[in-house]
Amino acid sequence: MINVSNPMFDVIKSDLAELDEGLTGAVASSVELVTEVGTHLVSAGGKRIRPALCLLAAHGGPDFDLKRVLPLAEALELIHTASLVHDDVLDEADTRRGQATANAKWNNQVAILSGDYIFARAFGLIADSTYGEHVSRRLAELVCNLSVGEIIQNHTVYQAVKDLDNYYGRIQKKTADFLEICCELGGLVGGMPEVDTRKLAEYGHCIGMAFQITDDLLDILQTSEQIGKPAGNDIRQGIVTLPVIHALNVSPNAAELERIVTDPEMTDEMVDRALAIVKATDGIELAKQQADDYLERARAVLPASLPADIREAFLMVTDFIGDRDF
Amino acid sequence: MINVSNPMFDVIKSDLAELDEGLTGAVASSVELVTEVGTHLVSAGGKRIRPALCLLAAHGGPDFDLKRVLPLAEALELIHTASLVHDDVLDEADTRRGQATANAKWNNQVAILSGDYIFARAFGLIADSTYGEHVSRRLAELVCNLSVGEIIQNHTVYQAVKDLDNYYGRIQKKTADFLEICCELGGLVGGMPEVDTRKLAEYGHCIGMAFQITDDLLDILQTSEQIGKPAGNDIRQGIVTLPVIHALNVSPNAAELERIVTDPEMTDEMVDRALAIVKATDGIELAKQQADDYLERARAVLPASLPADIREAFLMVTDFIGDRDF
Repeated sequence: MINVSNPMFDVIKSDLAELDEGLTGAVASSVELVTEVGTHLVSAGGKRIRPALCLLAAHGGPDFDLKRVLPLAEALELIHTASLVHDDVLDEADTRRGQATANAKWNNQVAILSGDYIFARAFGLIADSTYGEHVSRRLAELVCNLSVGEIIQNHTVYQAVKDLDNYYGRIQKKTADFLEICCELGGLVGGMPEVDTRKLAEYGHCIGMAFQITDDLLDILQTSEQIGKPAGNDIRQGIVTLPVIHALNVSPNAAELERIVTDPEMTDEMVDRALAIVKATDGIELAKQQADDYLERARAVLPASLPADIREAFLMVTDFIGDRDF
Repeated sequence: MINVSNPMFDVIKSDLAELDEGLTGAVASSVELVTEVGTHLVSAGGKRIRPALCLLAAHGGPDFDLKRVLPLAEALELIHTASLVHDDVLDEADTRRGQATANAKWNNQVAILSGDYIFARAFGLIADSTYGEHVSRRLAELVCNLSVGEIIQNHTVYQAVKDLDNYYGRIQKKTADFLEICCELGGLVGGMPEVDTRKLAEYGHCIGMAFQITDDLLDILQTSEQIGKPAGNDIRQGIVTLPVIHALNVSPNAAELERIVTDPEMTDEMVDRALAIVKATDGIELAKQQADDYLERARAVLPASLPADIREAFLMVTDFIGDRDF
């Protein structure tokens, strides 16, 4: 996954250091346990991709002011963190990024309530910073979309929905909308002209789609050693992604594949067989091509007004997603 | 519990009807399941005490405008609803107000995510209504406090904390802060002078403290038939309230009481014995007196500028809490 030590974020390295300090301050509470949980969560090795995009976008505008944009960047990371905390409760996950999850380290109650607290702290930071109602509205929409996206996903597990639009809608709500908003609001607070902010928002959408398609693809292609979880984890959890949906539509073994992916009791052997059926189609190539198309659109849509070093950083992000194999 | 058909809310009866419509609209989503869950939750027999206080307060100001204040009143009820949905997951509750909880009717995943969605819809309503940053900030603080209050409560179960300040702090975060904010923000949006808004906020704080002390008292005094759950439910869940804390400090049987309330495996007989020890002290009288004192302060602090019918409604709320025996 994207790492902050990656050279693409060199240009905002000192911003990200301040961000980390701000995040720790943002979750601090007069109640020790709340501070402890919050600090554990925001310092548990986050990739900071969302605040980094926001900061880069703000740098692209004429009014860049780190103090002004930091609370927004922090709120975006807090929303992401809160949503992961609740996801980990839903998935009964014990670890994330090599650290114990809040539900494992404390319990489900602490995790659910800490997630609520962190969501609310994000909205508090935004209110304190008087960015105006548009920013608050977009962040509220974001949290609604994240929740709705998860509800749809949970409601359709083991159902083998063969409609690709359903898949694209799902990953848009889960990832692309979020990265879009990071770019859009960063540009806005940086004082970027509206036409350029819109372009940067489209860039965010495109890299978000590419990122999620790649992520889903790696779940099929990687070995346990590479990603720290068994390959075919999505299939096992009843979630069908682009290559699987494609195979359900075109594979000569589509019926067998459908029987497997709709079986909540599937064995490891069945998962392996499903992976083999998927890999025998051109679904892998199709997904790679889709991700590449999105990345090409992302590069093309970058506003011409961006300073050279910021433009370069945005381009490095697209290269990174394209080359990602871990 | 307080019911909207109670005469104290007659003066805002038509407002509350519009509120109900607004709530249904507020949770509507393009995803059918989300709308279904949201509608179930907002129409599941809520008492509407929070939006009612907000509406009454707004009526008290010179700029009352129903269309203007409704989204705020709706947001307050949505925050309350979302927080109950998450509480029911934490408590593994099957029913609330005689209706199936979201976790029982659907599952924990749907309940947690729907709670997140409803929280976010509340902040979305506020952003759309451009009340200014103060309102958003207060609501964010409210959600933080609700979460922190629950975290403290969950973290200290079966611990028999004998400090009354701990108890007061807990019920303030759980109930009094919320009713205070309803009154304060209603007054603000109704254009009430700041000095009167502050008085009304104090009224809200006082009735909130009285309400929760009474609620906790009824849990000790009532029979199963009266409240639909066994008496001593708080003790059983490891939560000590005012009369119990008092008994832990003054009863000759304090040591026995402490052994019981700190035992997560306590039997029904032990709960009955604990109730008997508590009832043998003057803790019941003390709690009643405390609640009465808060109600007297609430009545005294009502601003003189209130229209007669609104003042009357606020006074009826205090009488109602004082007379509450169900």
